[in-house]
Amino acid sequence: MIDVAIIGASGYTGGELLRFLQNHSQVEVVAATSRQYDGTPVYKVHPHLRDSDLVFQDIKTSDINADLVFTATPHGASMKLVPELLENGCKVIDLSGDYRFDSTETYEKWYGFPHENPLKAVYGLPEIYRNEIKKSDLVANPGCFPTGAILASLPLAHEKLVETVIVDSKTGISGAGINPTEANRFTNCYDNVVPYNVTSHRHMPEIEQELEKAGSVKVCFTPHLVPVIRGILSTVHTFLKEDLSPDDLEQIYTSFYEGEPFVRVLDGGEIPRLSSVRGSNFAHVGCFQVDQHGRAIIISAIDNLVKGASGQAVQNMNLMFGFPETESLETYGLHP
Amino acid sequence: MIDVAIIGASGYTGGELLRFLQNHSQVEVVAATSRQYDGTPVYKVHPHLRDSDLVFQDIKTSDINADLVFTATPHGASMKLVPELLENGCKVIDLSGDYRFDSTETYEKWYGFPHENPLKAVYGLPEIYRNEIKKSDLVANPGCFPTGAILASLPLAHEKLVETVIVDSKTGISGAGINPTEANRFTNCYDNVVPYNVTSHRHMPEIEQELEKAGSVKVCFTPHLVPVIRGILSTVHTFLKEDLSPDDLEQIYTSFYEGEPFVRVLDGGEIPRLSSVRGSNFAHVGCFQVDQHGRAIIISAIDNLVKGASGQAVQNMNLMFGFPETESLETYGLHP
Amino acid sequence: MIDVAIIGASGYTGGELLRFLQNHSQVEVVAATSRQYDGTPVYKVHPHLRDSDLVFQDIKTSDINADLVFTATPHGASMKLVPELLENGCKVIDLSGDYRFDSTETYEKWYGFPHENPLKAVYGLPEIYRNEIKKSDLVANPGCFPTGAILASLPLAHEKLVETVIVDSKTGISGAGINPTEANRFTNCYDNVVPYNVTSHRHMPEIEQELEKAGSVKVCFTPHLVPVIRGILSTVHTFLKEDLSPDDLEQIYTSFYEGEPFVRVLDGGEIPRLSSVRGSNFAHVGCFQVDQHGRAIIISAIDNLVKGASGQAVQNMNLMFGFPETESLETYGLHP
Amino acid sequence: MIDVAIIGASGYTGGELLRFLQNHSQVEVVAATSRQYDGTPVYKVHPHLRDSDLVFQDIKTSDINADLVFTATPHGASMKLVPELLENGCKVIDLSGDYRFDSTETYEKWYGFPHENPLKAVYGLPEIYRNEIKKSDLVANPGCFPTGAILASLPLAHEKLVETVIVDSKTGISGAGINPTEANRFTNCYDNVVPYNVTSHRHMPEIEQELEKAGSVKVCFTPHLVPVIRGILSTVHTFLKEDLSPDDLEQIYTSFYEGEPFVRVLDGGEIPRLSSVRGSNFAHVGCFQVDQHGRAIIISAIDNLVKGASGQAVQNMNLMFGFPETESLETYGLHP
Repeated sequence: MIDVAIIGASGYTGGELLRFLQNHSQVEVVAATSRQYDGTPVYKVHPHLRDSDLVFQDIKTSDINADLVFTATPHGASMKLVPELLENGCKVIDLSGDYRFDSTETYEKWYGFPHENPLKAVYGLPEIYRNEIKKSDLVANPGCFPTGAILASLPLAHEKLVETVIVDSKTGISGAGINPTEANRFTNCYDNVVPYNVTSHRHMPEIEQELEKAGSVKVCFTPHLVPVIRGILSTVHTFLKEDLSPDDLEQIYTSFYEGEPFVRVLDGGEIPRLSSVRGSNFAHVGCFQVDQHGRAIIISAIDNLVKGASGQAVQNMNLMFGFPETESLETYGLHP
Repeated sequence: MIDVAIIGASGYTGGELLRFLQNHSQVEVVAATSRQYDGTPVYKVHPHLRDSDLVFQDIKTSDINADLVFTATPHGASMKLVPELLENGCKVIDLSGDYRFDSTETYEKWYGFPHENPLKAVYGLPEIYRNEIKKSDLVANPGCFPTGAILASLPLAHEKLVETVIVDSKTGISGAGINPTEANRFTNCYDNVVPYNVTSHRHMPEIEQELEKAGSVKVCFTPHLVPVIRGILSTVHTFLKEDLSPDDLEQIYTSFYEGEPFVRVLDGGEIPRLSSVRGSNFAHVGCFQVDQHGRAIIISAIDNLVKGASGQAVQNMNLMFGFPETESLETYGLHP
Repeated sequence: MIDVAIIGASGYTGGELLRFLQNHSQVEVVAATSRQYDGTPVYKVHPHLRDSDLVFQDIKTSDINADLVFTATPHGASMKLVPELLENGCKVIDLSGDYRFDSTETYEKWYGFPHENPLKAVYGLPEIYRNEIKKSDLVANPGCFPTGAILASLPLAHEKLVETVIVDSKTGISGAGINPTEANRFTNCYDNVVPYNVTSHRHMPEIEQELEKAGSVKVCFTPHLVPVIRGILSTVHTFLKEDLSPDDLEQIYTSFYEGEPFVRVLDGGEIPRLSSVRGSNFAHVGCFQVDQHGRAIIISAIDNLVKGASGQAVQNMNLMFGFPETESLETYGLHP
Repeated sequence: MIDVAIIGASGYTGGELLRFLQNHSQVEVVAATSRQYDGTPVYKVHPHLRDSDLVFQDIKTSDINADLVFTATPHGASMKLVPELLENGCKVIDLSGDYRFDSTETYEKWYGFPHENPLKAVYGLPEIYRNEIKKSDLVANPGCFPTGAILASLPLAHEKLVETVIVDSKTGISGAGINPTEANRFTNCYDNVVPYNVTSHRHMPEIEQELEKAGSVKVCFTPHLVPVIRGILSTVHTFLKEDLSPDDLEQIYTSFYEGEPFVRVLDGGEIPRLSSVRGSNFAHVGCFQVDQHGRAIIISAIDNLVKGASGQAVQNMNLMFGFPETESLETYGLHP
């Protein structure tokens, strides 16, 4: 049994962490912090968690007493908290972008401000770094787009089959956060498709970092908002260096992901869809088609708030503390 | 040919006024004001109006030189502008709630602040006040819910058939305006139904004012946000004082609205739906069922931004200036 | 450990039964029948259940060997199967309307065909009939609208506070089933609100049966399709016989539902919303407002496929077999 | 003034033709045919056209007496009607795929059945074939995806700047037609993204035919259903043969489409969105970004039922009969 705190618990990733942790047999949530909602019961902000008796608190970092802290804080804010938490003996899973990059320079270029406290962290994608995660005190939880894009591309990179991947992603609006903005206004999104940051999204270098390490792959990335609450569907278009059939592709993916508890490689002809993974920690990877010009198409579907954020964070926690990797994450997608 | 100005042209009602006025043969829009977007081309905010060469301006009220001014300003703001505009010789159609009430006391009770400049205005529902509108210099354009609710209930009130109506309305999210808020955030509305102001919506006294005058009817009103951009569907539940058949009801409505250019009374058995009036100035009224306990159900559908706001304002303009009442409003609904 | 069969497992209620039963510690699903999909793996139809190794079978009723059978079959079909299943020693939970009515005459009037095999069954709403359900071999699982409408109205009926309730319900489209029809076509529903069966829905007499028994209440019922996948929000409008405050109402409901594992009475001022219960077996009941004309408004939210169908069926199974009532139903709503 | 008939008028493209033609000053619709709805008033199927007094008729082709016939019939059906219509002296605009291909072999390969009546037709994209359309008796109205994809790619093909384009399209569900199917069922599409025919959509060879003629460009095409009623957003990913800046791209497009009445080239930095063109005949083309690996992104937005079908058909009619090209098509998009 471990004590867990969540810093920044009033956002969507905070709500999802609480949803999964409430049924976890080995975890007690001892603090859910929020400056804005200090003193408010958690269920007033997360109305589905009506049975929770937690109350948001505005606690100083130094007063947090926990075995593990999830920092569900914005980019730039995490770097101010994490060193102190580690010094105080907490393990940390950071859900921001602050500790995802091997190169501080890359971080600063794409995030636009200096990194105050670079530290060595493990990139929390268990499908690549499971063993490192188990031994780490600081895990940088991957971005939502990178999780889907990397899982869809990694076997090809690993097999040196591709030079460049074009990732055309369609994301639900919960990725734009809980604070009302022009981007997540209903009338902006509904009955609409809104491309954004078409060449400049900061998840691009994160995807590229991991695919380059696996197989020196260049990444072209363009995201689109679609009228969906949860989920990222990533369509990877790429030209193969070798002449492979759909069956070859399916086999490469099937053997690459064998034994993975949360990646499902679909059958030939099956296409991933968001509803299959809605609310769950599963990633579906499939498609495996090759067209008349030799373009291969691989498609992945994840829930951006779960495998793309809080579910993966809980999976990382399970690894870091030696719990069964799937504990509290066994729910299936909500389809339809 | 008249000169028209729109104060507060960057919101949705401003955009809709411009959409209809751009094709109006008798109107030139000489000013579209916006404090926030001063100097910005109109099409940057209203991207569908790409051919417009208008530019938002931040103009002083005293500098507005127009035959007619639409004040598409918030409640409380209009009352500060309208008297000066009238003094300067402009006719005014006010889209706020400031001039809709016969009783200043009622206004102040429901809007929560004092009325600084009460003035006599005509309530701009042509189906009741067509002749008065033609002669008026100040028209108070009706609220969106009142337009739908009154059109659905008026014939019953007029015939003294009902004592109380229960209006259960379902509204699209554009009614919550263009500024991002908790209410119009995508993740709040999508795949959801959100009742609000269930007994306290300030459109209730507006509906009641007009139905009381027509036939001393009491009004119970509850609105719900539904995941729709445009449109209000109002379901009126009421117990009839007399034993009427569906056919009787249909006949009462058909003869009441005979000749009305924008009200369509549906055939027996036909049910109004939002898509039939989407983007258009039409109101569909229908249903005309009576259940086993004597409850009658009347349903109306309007586009809240058109018949519920800017389209009706243009209709009022046409009446005030002697143009054909349907000029520039002849487009049909966008179905599907 | 019991053996369970699902007849008609390829529809949405079948999929939901499987979702909940897969994680139930006391249940083995021994058959999932489907005529149309005989021989097809379950996950080809319910893609979220990818880890299931069940295969749809077209089995004769006489060959079903199970402790419990869920008949997720259409109205009219269940009555042909249930007697034989009971004779063969299976307990049955029927999800159709065939066994919900005390009066065969009422059933035949509203469903439009003769009942071939009337039998005594318990109406499977645990909040009324928990003890009877525990002892029953045949439970008639309630309709989706009745579940939400009865839970919202029952305390008022029980306290003899109302004569008539007007239930204005808004339902997600999954209620229209998995087979493509005009009603559940995307372009019919999206960006739209579609009232239907405004005085003639066969869930009306089902609601009335239970509220009449509780407190001789007359029921007026009108459903609307809203662009939502799951969920029913029922707005109950009613005039109270006594002068009660919102606090009085809240107290009546709180004490009525005390100890209920799946009904949550919200705090004063809180409004139920579909997302709070999405995918879960919880019913949220709240609002408790009274307007200026003495109309009380009570609102309930349920997931039509869960508390309104399969979740409630599993709850009934738990009661019939002495399992913990909440087993496998403890997941919270998927919000946002 | 010309007499116009629509064969197959009960579908969405039929409804849209009627919406535009009803306000056309030079056209009288003399017949709207439908086998299924013979004798039914048009407004029962197209409820937004409530003022229409047309009635669907089941007329023999030989009895059609019109200057122009729109064949809004399925692929394979048009080829059986068109020769006879032409023989009878009607001009024809065919909205199916039957006459879009230069090569009968290509048609038969991708549509999967023999072409019974090949004829010479003009491909009805006015931006390429305006002069030919003016003189033609048979115009093959382009497919919806091809319209958006070609308009987004044509200037690059024409300038020989690209070898291959990858077109990742997101389409509204109205493209799946008015008949209820698994594909257009609400619960399949809502809150979801559904890739389909990822390498095998028959609009691919149509796009390729026109881009190859313009500049020997290879086309990779993958469509996705998104929860939107109308609209196709096509994201074109391509690697340029020359090192061009965003400004260069913008200039190429601006000069290529100069004077086009329905193509709007957006300003640098502006991104096309579906709502800007919803319900209108405009195509918005923009984006013009180049990423760190030299990939250029061009995006187009059209309404699939208007510029992608019926609006373009009316534009072609205007050209064929010497009417002003924009007559009855001047409405702007419905935003929001």
